[in-house]
Amino acid sequence: MESRLDLFINRMVSQRACLDFAADATKDMSGPVFELGLGNGRTYSHMRQIMPDRDIYVFERAVASHPDSTPPEDRVLLGDVFETLPAALKRFGPTAALIHADLGGHNREKNDQFARALSPVIEPILAQGGLMVASDRMYFDTLTEVALPPDAVRGRCFIYTCT
Amino acid sequence: MESRLDLFINRMVSQRACLDFAADATKDMSGPVFELGLGNGRTYSHMRQIMPDRDIYVFERAVASHPDSTPPEDRVLLGDVFETLPAALKRFGPTAALIHADLGGHNREKNDQFARALSPVIEPILAQGGLMVASDRMYFDTLTEVALPPDAVRGRCFIYTCT
Ligand SMILES: C[S@@+](CC[C@H](N)C(=O)[O-])C[C@H]1O[C@@H](n2cnc3c(N)ncnc32)[C@H](O)[C@@H]1O
Ligand code: NI
Ligand code: NI
Repeated sequence: MESRLDLFINRMVSQRACLDFAADATKDMSGPVFELGLGNGRTYSHMRQIMPDRDIYVFERAVASHPDSTPPEDRVLLGDVFETLPAALKRFGPTAALIHADLGGHNREKNDQFARALSPVIEPILAQGGLMVASDRMYFDTLTEVALPPDAVRGRCFIYTCT
Repeated sequence: MESRLDLFINRMVSQRACLDFAADATKDMSGPVFELGLGNGRTYSHMRQIMPDRDIYVFERAVASHPDSTPPEDRVLLGDVFETLPAALKRFGPTAALIHADLGGHNREKNDQFARALSPVIEPILAQGGLMVASDRMYFDTLTEVALPPDAVRGRCFIYTCT
């Protein structure tokens, strides 16, 4: 059986593997990168490091990240994602090259409900050929699931693309 | 360069590797196991899982762990470790088979000062043949450092024994 430490390690290792994979696969795309949920800023710190030259926008209700991983003010889209994502669609069009979402808490059922509600809001924003990396299974109509990179743990993360 | 995500993963993977190693190496010892710093309860959850039959006492100033990983009341030694560890020495004698310490925050210098102050308080409690696993380098007079297990990352954890 897995301890909470095992589960947590698997989740973090999977996020890293999926982000590394998605950053590389979309490196020639010009559209922005979206980080949904800043939290402590660990994945954002990693994204900045592997994508130093790309525009990374952070969607967050209330910024409370580690000082080393706090985005510049003009890169934070502050507010509820159900408002800021539609606004981003108006601003950027369907151009996002990479979207990473880790919005959940530790209540599985709530996370699943949230993912269901969020899916149609994310769906129109991803560019063709773009990748969406999520810590929860998403419910898309048109985006399709992509195979995970070798280091990722099945069920701990999901990758979708727009064909 | 390592991102904060890389550092964090290395710390957790190292904690797990050292705990697995130390639990196995001390499995025939009868003394108690001490967890210093409960935090979220992830390492405690792991310790309970790999040592289901052993007495695990948790030293913590203020319990705020995940509900799934909250120890029974009579296994919590509540208060500052500089008071509760000397009290534990009186109660149990020098019998601890395994001590795990993860008491630090993210300020390296403060953690180092804390480890210096804590070392002489931990030193007399470890049983002969017992192991102490720490996330910070400790400053012991009589305990000696032990080689890390293969999965642990050098500098992310330390193991000491009483010979
Ligand atoms: C980094 S957290 C432990 C995380 C834990 N290993 C986990 O995996 O979830 C450190 C904990 O040590 C506790 N702590 C720090 N200094 C302490 C002290 N002097 N006495 C007692 N507890 C202390 C804090 O309250 C905090 O909960
Ligand atoms: Ni829970
Ligand atoms: Ni810091």
